[in-house]
Amino acid sequence: MVNYFSSDFTLGILGGGQLGKMLLYETRKFDIKTHVLDPSAEAPCRIACDVFQQGNLMDFDTVYKFGKKVDVITFEIEGVNVDALEKLEAEGKKVYPSAKTLRNIQDKGVQKQFYKNHRIPTSPFKIFESKDKLNEAIVRKELHFPFVWKSCTGGYDGKGVSIVRTAEDVIPLSEGACIAEKLIPFKNELAVIVARTPSGNVTTYPVVEMEFHPEANQVEYVICPARINDSVAEKARAVAEKVSKAFEHVGLLAVEMFQTEDDEILVNEVAPRPHNSGHYSIEASFTNQFEQHVRAILDLPLGNTNSKVGGIMVNLVGAEGHNGEVVYENIEKILAMEGVTPHIYGKKETRPFRKMGHVTIVNKDISEARKIAEEVKNTIQVISK
Amino acid sequence: MVNYFSSDFTLGILGGGQLGKMLLYETRKFDIKTHVLDPSAEAPCRIACDVFQQGNLMDFDTVYKFGKKVDVITFEIEGVNVDALEKLEAEGKKVYPSAKTLRNIQDKGVQKQFYKNHRIPTSPFKIFESKDKLNEAIVRKELHFPFVWKSCTGGYDGKGVSIVRTAEDVIPLSEGACIAEKLIPFKNELAVIVARTPSGNVTTYPVVEMEFHPEANQVEYVICPARINDSVAEKARAVAEKVSKAFEHVGLLAVEMFQTEDDEILVNEVAPRPHNSGHYSIEASFTNQFEQHVRAILDLPLGNTNSKVGGIMVNLVGAEGHNGEVVYENIEKILAMEGVTPHIYGKKETRPFRKMGHVTIVNKDISEARKIAEEVKNTIQVISK
Repeated sequence: MVNYFSSDFTLGILGGGQLGKMLLYETRKFDIKTHVLDPSAEAPCRIACDVFQQGNLMDFDTVYKFGKKVDVITFEIEGVNVDALEKLEAEGKKVYPSAKTLRNIQDKGVQKQFYKNHRIPTSPFKIFESKDKLNEAIVRKELHFPFVWKSCTGGYDGKGVSIVRTAEDVIPLSEGACIAEKLIPFKNELAVIVARTPSGNVTTYPVVEMEFHPEANQVEYVICPARINDSVAEKARAVAEKVSKAFEHVGLLAVEMFQTEDDEILVNEVAPRPHNSGHYSIEASFTNQFEQHVRAILDLPLGNTNSKVGGIMVNLVGAEGHNGEVVYENIEKILAMEGVTPHIYGKKETRPFRKMGHVTIVNKDISEARKIAEEVKNTIQVISK
Repeated sequence: MVNYFSSDFTLGILGGGQLGKMLLYETRKFDIKTHVLDPSAEAPCRIACDVFQQGNLMDFDTVYKFGKKVDVITFEIEGVNVDALEKLEAEGKKVYPSAKTLRNIQDKGVQKQFYKNHRIPTSPFKIFESKDKLNEAIVRKELHFPFVWKSCTGGYDGKGVSIVRTAEDVIPLSEGACIAEKLIPFKNELAVIVARTPSGNVTTYPVVEMEFHPEANQVEYVICPARINDSVAEKARAVAEKVSKAFEHVGLLAVEMFQTEDDEILVNEVAPRPHNSGHYSIEASFTNQFEQHVRAILDLPLGNTNSKVGGIMVNLVGAEGHNGEVVYENIEKILAMEGVTPHIYGKKETRPFRKMGHVTIVNKDISEARKIAEEVKNTIQVISK
């Protein structure tokens, strides 16, 4: 076995945001040497790695040269130069997840087509190479309202996704390639995180449920375990495993799914990295998702994905109308609540809806955790000075 | 309330070893700015703090100047210049735990006298200002074999402590001031960690038990909860609270105690900082000891000290006969065991008995955890290349 611990072995991480920051807790715990590349000098990962390099993640030379200096490369963001990763792989460097996995995921049209080719259940869709082609299809009545529009590239945290109900709704959509999906009413939005090693060992985390705000179409709570029946949970984990197998990814794969009105499971999209839906695992799981990612990409034995206790995650996003130096109002009040742990990502400036941190609420009783989560949500405010 | 989170507020930490390293996981989680002072350029804290300064912790000027630049000062090692801390306090700087607490603890004679003055149960003892005075007392038959000898200063990890059974055993003892304690047979060695805020809020962690190797007189396992009956556990927590109240310390205080043959609790010694006996809390407790220390010294609400699951900690110390670049042999084997998390401190060189890391084993069933802990102990080896 390679000696990863307190040795010269170096893990390179593309992206230095909050996911990278939480990954570094684990590399520090195992004393694994790390290099991090991020465009911002103020990135949350600027400390706690061994070498921090400021640079453009989409630039071929920057990524290639960064990769040459490390032993294994991983990423915490999909927006990286895949050509550079492919060249590094061709030269024998280990890139986990692989450039191929990333290519199949980066473009949402390619990703949907991948599901279709691999007979993975997903909502019906059409791909359009431009907004003009989309408009043509509407005019020719090949595409009917309502539908879900998704930009093929660049979507993130709800950006690049719209529900299109009328011709009016088409006007603000961006110009590039896109997909139009059938709008399917669903009971629940679920997610399963799968970990896979280069040797092909696989574990899945329990199914989590995204609870949405009844009016603002925004995830309010990620709840583990999901409040669904066992047969649906089993089906969701089986679908996630099938997706994982199809991608042959290495590392984590977060699989987001819909539970339809008639309890079918449809894959919505995946992320080949630690994921917001797995943050609860830091406090709730025997092995948290970040440690599991490290274990997976280094081909170490995977850890136990079961939970010690019930866990709920609440995102801390910047309040509307607040821009500038951040203040976490009433944070001391939530610290007084039972089983509450705030995670502050370290971004100095808040903006409306910017992800600034998250709060985990753990409790042996998940319905008690849910009550406390609501108190947390109603108490803490991310505002500016 | 002071705005500690993502602000200019700065916490200064004296000492940059493994305790500081684990403390930094928590300051990072809350995005609290930190400066760390340590004599070694290779200290485990050299990364993950905002500013790392290399310097002598016993040097007045170094400690004083370091302290002037931060808002609150804490320490992860008792061997620091207390005069500098006193001057900083006199000038209005917050030092937690206080210089006074540290003065009462640094010298074991003073510490024992403190217990006596505060009617805290502890084994009978005599203080000697030198080895000559100790010898005189033996000759005059004022002191009888066997007894426990402790150096008043400089003891650490079992150094500076001897059981003296014969005149022969006196010969290798060091020259300085010492105490001689009555050797009291005990059933168990227990510890309780107490957290106390400047406002006087107090929490205690569950009682842990140190299980010793039957032959080598060395702690093998720290077990939480201790396998003792409830009335003994209650008594131990009450004694620990009494000690905490007497010291009026702020932050953590680890209270080590003996459970005698007739179920009395005697205080052995205390450490005013996160402690080896609390490492299990990272994986097992709702609030780990390092987060609790941060909460305490910043006068934030204290967290829940209960456990999610049973926890056992095994120290990883350098194997005998091995000196040099460290290798954690069979670490991949223990990673395959249920609920096992290794913590590698980041020291590059191993030496016999050097604390290189620890392993936590968590399980809903503590006797199952105990079995796995033994497997861990029999599997991993800290050796040199």
